[in-house]
Amino acid sequence: MQRKKILLVSSHPEPRSLNAALTAFAAGHLRAAGHEVRVSDLYAMKWKAAVDADDIPDHVADRRLDVLAAHERATLAGRLTPDVLAEQEKLRWSDALILQFPLWWFSVPAMLKGWFDRVLTNGFAHGPAVPPPYSEGALGGRRALVSVTIGAREAAFSDRGAHGRLADVLHPVQHGVLWFTGMAPLAPFAVYDAVGVPDERFAAAVREYGRRLDGLFTDDPVPFRLLTGGDYDRDLRLRPGVEAAGASGLDLHVRPSPDTAR
Amino acid sequence: MQRKKILLVSSHPEPRSLNAALTAFAAGHLRAAGHEVRVSDLYAMKWKAAVDADDIPDHVADRRLDVLAAHERATLAGRLTPDVLAEQEKLRWSDALILQFPLWWFSVPAMLKGWFDRVLTNGFAHGPAVPPPYSEGALGGRRALVSVTIGAREAAFSDRGAHGRLADVLHPVQHGVLWFTGMAPLAPFAVYDAVGVPDERFAAAVREYGRRLDGLFTDDPVPFRLLTGGDYDRDLRLRPGVEAAGASGLDLHVRPSPDTAR
Repeated sequence: MQRKKILLVSSHPEPRSLNAALTAFAAGHLRAAGHEVRVSDLYAMKWKAAVDADDIPDHVADRRLDVLAAHERATLAGRLTPDVLAEQEKLRWSDALILQFPLWWFSVPAMLKGWFDRVLTNGFAHGPAVPPPYSEGALGGRRALVSVTIGAREAAFSDRGAHGRLADVLHPVQHGVLWFTGMAPLAPFAVYDAVGVPDERFAAAVREYGRRLDGLFTDDPVPFRLLTGGDYDRDLRLRPGVEAAGASGLDLHVRPSPDTAR
Repeated sequence: MQRKKILLVSSHPEPRSLNAALTAFAAGHLRAAGHEVRVSDLYAMKWKAAVDADDIPDHVADRRLDVLAAHERATLAGRLTPDVLAEQEKLRWSDALILQFPLWWFSVPAMLKGWFDRVLTNGFAHGPAVPPPYSEGALGGRRALVSVTIGAREAAFSDRGAHGRLADVLHPVQHGVLWFTGMAPLAPFAVYDAVGVPDERFAAAVREYGRRLDGLFTDDPVPFRLLTGGDYDRDLRLRPGVEAAGASGLDLHVRPSPDTAR
């Protein structure tokens, strides 16, 4: 088996939480399989969540802060803050990224959102200086796996669940962050009903998580469409007739499986 | 015209940004129409973005922090931090909530996500102590409007746009935050291609925004389904046959319009 490098970014304030336990399990499981693992435990690192002018060491106090342009200048000049540069270095180093978080308000915690906002700068993860999104991408060649704990029951996130399908709720992360930057995300791993999980259910969850981690480099990623290759027109609209019959909404942006296409 | 109370929550680090200009425009426009407006400018307030044990003044240092349970205990005891209590008081006071933010990584900035995570506590905005979600809700009777600036062009967020329909990308906010807590969200107001907007386009944008603000209490909200009333079963799954023919994904959770149903 090939030795790989995995970055695990974890976001929960409590070191004895289910999220912390899943992070520790994943790190141990992957290391036991011979991989190298680095963990960014955002709360333990006292990660700064909000983008502001302090992120741009060369920012002139009275000048208007245009985040996109300032991020690009600072990134290309190598003039970002040490905390951001360290995370970018870990991403460059990695062959795969795992995100571990509790679903808060149907999204990542502010802490992890701030890792996206501050680390994935214009010039590093997107923008004219790097390969285009949804294809090669700035972080192309990397696998990605979301591992999420959810208070609700699975039915509420199922195909007809009131909260929306989990894949749709996580679309901004799966497609908008991971796939956009060129990573190949797998289907998310979720632990539902995650408040006060009894030992038996925790044991079952880590068994399943272990199988997912074993497939990190071999399972099929979500077959999101490439921006290159003709599916989309120049205005980034899906060309007519490309989709499976009856597909609509976010399903348009997933390539039909051979079964669906038939 | 009836005098209403509107809370405007704005999240951009630059006081001369397009977002700040839209916030100032909205506050002025609504006040000119006779309404009361309060503005929470999160960056100006140096809002703390990340939930942690400091949010729970009664938290005992060595005790395990269970965020849901701790939020509920602290909320019901009136023992939250002054910054959180102040935002909850503004929400209680309000007849409508407007969220103003730039779309960063297909979602709200970490700063605004931290306002959701910290203000909308168990016991205040959700949980067993308040009316159930997606219906009456903890914040029932309030209107809500998302006003978002987006760097990309509109086509990329259109029905077949590569980024996904804007309504789907914003589903975690529109349905997961606003509708979940009982507010009635309107369709979002978006300014696309929002980098370096020339004066003419800004003038057109605020004309359109003014019309949307004029309709804040009279336009039809997004017709999301109620959890009560029989559309969903006890496991929160949409009952078979309730939807319009061919509907799938997130569209399942919007009531078919008379046109669609025909």
